[in-house]
Amino acid sequence: MDGDLVSERGHAEPIFVLSRLSVMLPGIGVFGTGDIVRALVPFLRAKGFRVEAVWGRTLEAAENVATELNIPFHTNKVDDVLLRKDVDLVFIICQPDLHAQIAVKALGIGKHVLCDRPAGLCQLEVLKMVHAAQYYPSLISVISHGLRFLPAFVHMKRQIEAGYVGTVNVCDVRVHCGSMIGSQFDWMCSHLMGGGILTMVGSHIIDVISFVTSQRATRVHGMMRTFTKSTEKINGIRWIDSDDFCSFQMILDEGACVTATLNSHMAGGFVQEVVVCGSRGRLAVRGANLYGQRHTSEKEEELLHEGADDVAHLTNKNNSARINSLLPQPYLQGLFRLAGALKEAFATGDGEHGWLKEPVSTAATFEDGQYVQAVIDAIKLSSASRQWEQVTVANDESELNPLMTRLNLPNINMSSLDALSQAPTNRITPQRKVTSSESHLPWSFATKH
Amino acid sequence: MDGDLVSERGHAEPIFVLSRLSVMLPGIGVFGTGDIVRALVPFLRAKGFRVEAVWGRTLEAAENVATELNIPFHTNKVDDVLLRKDVDLVFIICQPDLHAQIAVKALGIGKHVLCDRPAGLCQLEVLKMVHAAQYYPSLISVISHGLRFLPAFVHMKRQIEAGYVGTVNVCDVRVHCGSMIGSQFDWMCSHLMGGGILTMVGSHIIDVISFVTSQRATRVHGMMRTFTKSTEKINGIRWIDSDDFCSFQMILDEGACVTATLNSHMAGGFVQEVVVCGSRGRLAVRGANLYGQRHTSEKEEELLHEGADDVAHLTNKNNSARINSLLPQPYLQGLFRLAGALKEAFATGDGEHGWLKEPVSTAATFEDGQYVQAVIDAIKLSSASRQWEQVTVANDESELNPLMTRLNLPNINMSSLDALSQAPTNRITPQRKVTSSESHLPWSFATKH
Repeated sequence: MDGDLVSERGHAEPIFVLSRLSVMLPGIGVFGTGDIVRALVPFLRAKGFRVEAVWGRTLEAAENVATELNIPFHTNKVDDVLLRKDVDLVFIICQPDLHAQIAVKALGIGKHVLCDRPAGLCQLEVLKMVHAAQYYPSLISVISHGLRFLPAFVHMKRQIEAGYVGTVNVCDVRVHCGSMIGSQFDWMCSHLMGGGILTMVGSHIIDVISFVTSQRATRVHGMMRTFTKSTEKINGIRWIDSDDFCSFQMILDEGACVTATLNSHMAGGFVQEVVVCGSRGRLAVRGANLYGQRHTSEKEEELLHEGADDVAHLTNKNNSARINSLLPQPYLQGLFRLAGALKEAFATGDGEHGWLKEPVSTAATFEDGQYVQAVIDAIKLSSASRQWEQVTVANDESELNPLMTRLNLPNINMSSLDALSQAPTNRITPQRKVTSSESHLPWSFATKH
Repeated sequence: MDGDLVSERGHAEPIFVLSRLSVMLPGIGVFGTGDIVRALVPFLRAKGFRVEAVWGRTLEAAENVATELNIPFHTNKVDDVLLRKDVDLVFIICQPDLHAQIAVKALGIGKHVLCDRPAGLCQLEVLKMVHAAQYYPSLISVISHGLRFLPAFVHMKRQIEAGYVGTVNVCDVRVHCGSMIGSQFDWMCSHLMGGGILTMVGSHIIDVISFVTSQRATRVHGMMRTFTKSTEKINGIRWIDSDDFCSFQMILDEGACVTATLNSHMAGGFVQEVVVCGSRGRLAVRGANLYGQRHTSEKEEELLHEGADDVAHLTNKNNSARINSLLPQPYLQGLFRLAGALKEAFATGDGEHGWLKEPVSTAATFEDGQYVQAVIDAIKLSSASRQWEQVTVANDESELNPLMTRLNLPNINMSSLDALSQAPTNRITPQRKVTSSESHLPWSFATKH
């Protein structure tokens, strides 16, 4: 069956190799029915993974994807995927408000987890994921920040460590893309559900900056806006309130300044530029290429690495157009490379846990996801408070600002800063300590399967 | 003499035409001895102006320029230029701390004024210039915001007014250039003297955004930094404290958001991109070209105007390399076009005051300069207070925040935000009303010549 599926897609690997791999590689359960899933599943199969089950928010959506992609099992019940014996690795690529719940449950049941960005809706949620990951260290738990696997950024990190730019002073990031809103009202339209350009694109940027500079943000400032509140197709009772424009600044822990502009009002393409300037020179990733120039050099900027389009051809040709608009090439290539790294981890794994850490050692952990979420939370708070905000990565739920917990999020309406213009500008510093007696893992199973 | 000078530069206009123009065009006195002056003077002569006198901070600097450019009179005394009968128009292109003083005096004596940006060191200074300009409406008083005369921006403004982008939502500006610090310590190294990338480059950006959108900033946020505090040649007792990096955000009065990144850590070129996104489409000026795309268009971004390098050839070839690094092409071209517009104003002027308003009607007035200065002051304050700040364009000196007056400027050290990190974050809102009995025109002459 695996062999048939793969050969249908015209890949040349002999079937017996795939069969051997299939035995060694974990079976996969996929949460989500979006276009990314449609692109990812064929790629996973090409890599030798078996995709055993798919979950959809509705049974209909799950059935459609299962039929289209020939997935043996589909359901709209989370547990029905998690409890399957033939599923050992879950890909959580559904709406962000379900990420934490599914991830924590999956780890509790003993499944490896790859979770899409943003890790959760707020730091409190991601902290629960971190605690679960810490509790089950023998399981892989990674966030889909694939830019870490894009060769241009890998080389950029290496060059920064080798001193090409000297002391990092300025990071200047620009992402220009078209509207991220689809033809129907869905979670992407709602900032409460995790939609918006900051969570979708900014999360990748925040992560990759900390990856290449090895520095983390201590203070942030943000300005978020929703200019497109309705479209031709979304104009009923429900309005779009997720941010379609975001400009944010970060101070990193060694003093560097980051400024990022995320603009989804640029129809017709995807432009991403990450520039890192230092005391000795600068590096810039534009698209998938890495450029560099030393201050002392008389020459033009040099091309240090040319990104090859070496993964995109693996996507199903029929889907690629749809996917390009939803998941830009750098992110898609990164996600695929991360999946490739997961395969390496399992295929070469003969260690204690049946997998090797090395291939996925640079992947974003849940701790990295928590840091990114802490920065996102602080940027959202800053956009509302109109001040710089500290980034606080909490070890314990009691440390978290109750303002930014999920229940309180509706109080912050990012699209109407003006409502705050009459408010006193004193910093709101909640003093209340939450002495919660809740479990760290409220959704976890009592027994580990 | 005029004819000889011009024909030396190989221009084809018959001498008698120039002679006629020379009679009609005002004689020019130039304040400043920098490279811009070296580029500008030949251009002015090519346009038919007589350059009668040059002022330098030192007699030696003035003499050098006078000799090099064949200027009949040189001095280091301001009045010696202003009081000359053959000087009717002054170009103030010297250090910013002298702009206001010279401009106010010049208008008081009855001279037309073109003043380089920034108009002054703080809004208080520029307000005095505004009062002088209002007092002498028959004299031309303009700021050298030449981007208003660059065809790409003229077309951008026209397209915005014609509804190409619909409602303006987002302006995204990026300027990447090399270090602006020369080989010696001068005013460019000192933020107290008006140096820094915000005043030098940001002033043009703030002005051109208000020009093309017809909107003004009401609130701003800024982050300014000085990363390069010393260079190989400037490493003595005096340190560089003018900003070499600035990221700022503005809210315009009709709700649009502006984000701008000014980065002088990008050796080897000058990149300027001004993008205006709206509800229906977007426009972008890159270098001297204008591009556009409507949201509904299926096509690629279209080239709406291709900027010709039609002014640069007029600069003295020997100087052009030096000038490119100091004054980037778009600004130099803009300045030349503004000078060309001044010529038109005088050459065709048969009106009441000997000049026609029409050719210079879109030039930046001193009021525009005051607005730009108010925004700069607010960005500086925001960078120190780490909050959004209101932009207050004052009608009277008593309205001005004493914090931002010149005497108080040293209190704000932009390069060490950390010193403020322990300060209370409450907004400093000075209540003291300055009931000044000073004249509006403290440097003006009592009698008008």
